[in-house]
Amino acid sequence: MPEFRQDPVTQNWVIIATERAKRPSDYASTDNKGRETKATVKDTCPFCPGNEKQTPPEVFALRSPDTKADSPGWQVRVVPNKFAALLPEENGEEQKTELYRCLPGKGVHEVIIEIPEHEASFPDYPPQQAVKVLQAWRQRYLQHSQKGLKYIQIFKNQGQIAGASLEHPHSQLLATPFIPPAVSQEFNRVQEYLEKEESCLFCDLLEEEMQKGARVVAFNKKFLAFCPYASRFPFETWIFPRQHQSHFGEIEDENLEDLAAIMQDVLGRLQRALQDPPFNLILRSAPVNGETQEINGYHWHFQLLPRLTIVAGFEYGTGIYINPTPPELAAQFLTQANKEDENDGET
Amino acid sequence: MPEFRQDPVTQNWVIIATERAKRPSDYASTDNKGRETKATVKDTCPFCPGNEKQTPPEVFALRSPDTKADSPGWQVRVVPNKFAALLPEENGEEQKTELYRCLPGKGVHEVIIEIPEHEASFPDYPPQQAVKVLQAWRQRYLQHSQKGLKYIQIFKNQGQIAGASLEHPHSQLLATPFIPPAVSQEFNRVQEYLEKEESCLFCDLLEEEMQKGARVVAFNKKFLAFCPYASRFPFETWIFPRQHQSHFGEIEDENLEDLAAIMQDVLGRLQRALQDPPFNLILRSAPVNGETQEINGYHWHFQLLPRLTIVAGFEYGTGIYINPTPPELAAQFLTQANKEDENDGET
Repeated sequence: MPEFRQDPVTQNWVIIATERAKRPSDYASTDNKGRETKATVKDTCPFCPGNEKQTPPEVFALRSPDTKADSPGWQVRVVPNKFAALLPEENGEEQKTELYRCLPGKGVHEVIIEIPEHEASFPDYPPQQAVKVLQAWRQRYLQHSQKGLKYIQIFKNQGQIAGASLEHPHSQLLATPFIPPAVSQEFNRVQEYLEKEESCLFCDLLEEEMQKGARVVAFNKKFLAFCPYASRFPFETWIFPRQHQSHFGEIEDENLEDLAAIMQDVLGRLQRALQDPPFNLILRSAPVNGETQEINGYHWHFQLLPRLTIVAGFEYGTGIYINPTPPELAAQFLTQANKEDENDGET
Repeated sequence: MPEFRQDPVTQNWVIIATERAKRPSDYASTDNKGRETKATVKDTCPFCPGNEKQTPPEVFALRSPDTKADSPGWQVRVVPNKFAALLPEENGEEQKTELYRCLPGKGVHEVIIEIPEHEASFPDYPPQQAVKVLQAWRQRYLQHSQKGLKYIQIFKNQGQIAGASLEHPHSQLLATPFIPPAVSQEFNRVQEYLEKEESCLFCDLLEEEMQKGARVVAFNKKFLAFCPYASRFPFETWIFPRQHQSHFGEIEDENLEDLAAIMQDVLGRLQRALQDPPFNLILRSAPVNGETQEINGYHWHFQLLPRLTIVAGFEYGTGIYINPTPPELAAQFLTQANKEDENDGET
């Protein structure tokens, strides 16, 4: 069974997979650079329509009304992760010695299969399909807000080097029984700022970025995308609702379209400017089942982290990232990466 | 000129390279998985003997007495990094707005070329050569402890996926004008423990690990290597001096051999058990030019982080690492990875 263990020095948590534990030979499918050498073959893809029995039974789907669960006919399909890092039925006890602390690996780990087509790419989805993905994210977010879990992490890994083990477009949701310390620290800072300045730190950032403009990548009526001042990764981009909102789960139906549009726009720009680079897209949102104050002080957003540089010894040693592309330059290239530049006859 | 920028939310720092800033086309040498496609050719290696003029002039070397600086005849050679992330001559001012804070990228960035042979590997160096590498690390550590810098990070990246852009065996030193917040946090925790328990947290960990034994990989008279209880990476291994010592720079001559021996032993085990995996090796040591208390409370050590898993969206979102190999199992495999198992006729 998986377990959470806390480092006595940093007080950070890790999830240790104690059952399906990997032995040295299990890493043999990676070459000596640590890269997966197994290719994903489309015919055997467990996320393709027709192969629904290869995944655990679906827990949610947007599908045509005349179709049955776990059969084709879906537009978006959510299933428990077959190789879950956390399990819902864990019921053990905390174990604590003077130095070490361990909790049962209780939580939720789901996969959101975003589209039936194996080779699709988010920026090229039909706009209504992108909206459906966000609807599924919201539905699962709200679903797991009810259950005594404390934090919900939705994320998307694209490209092998960014952690995607299957090619078929998908995202994931992991929910934890406590607020991760790194996230908690961020909540505290935002809370301090709120008390001192009587405004939301993120709202102030958005105002500053809109006014300055040098780091803005795109915006529409409801959302703003910009490269953050202290970007850890080249072309790092954050996407915020322009109006204060604590929980991603609170997003209104009428705003889903604007969010889908700006995500498709930003990811499309990244794809064009940098030849489809690997990336992680992560949601930041208020804790669920938390204190009211904590919830009100936060402002949900997405962080897009392109993986063009390698996080190495200096970063792991100090926590300081080296970014060779200033965000002002990154924003300039992303704003210039218009569809017309592709020379693909679309103009 | 490089600059430090502080994230207003997390308060973490990044180093932004503002001069040699990379444009999108500079990332074209990585394939669409973000991997470097350029190979390092031995003939043109700037770290090989005979090519000394391809690096900045050496700042330290262990070399035969009858040889000249920046010419062959060295055993270990230290040069400023040609593509330095920080520069010693930066003399700008702090810039601060209500939200954003920026410091000049002042500091030191050096490369330690560990051995003349291009294809050598640390565990297979002649034992006296490994000692020489540690002597060079100590010399540079002490050298930069005198200069108003606050933290010295020595690290070694091995393998492309772990950030090594050149094959020739080398390590690096980066020194910063402030204590990185992540490191500072660790110092505070250790200090709190010291005040509460009247003992060093790390000394207590070492005692526990030696007693328990399940996570011990190797030990000798002066050093202990074990897989930490909350390992973030599979086969993560920490190497500690068994006697309390705050600064790596304080290591005595007579202990360098024992440290070199356990490093060669542990890296050799890793190489044999996992077919030469990519890794980061990082030093943790007390801040330099710091407060006496801070210095006394810390206990220097090395962290070896094999890069067999991919740090992805969940880790960047929450700070929680997923480790599929429990440290107890990792330690078991590493202790069993003896030289005799290689079947290479050495037995």
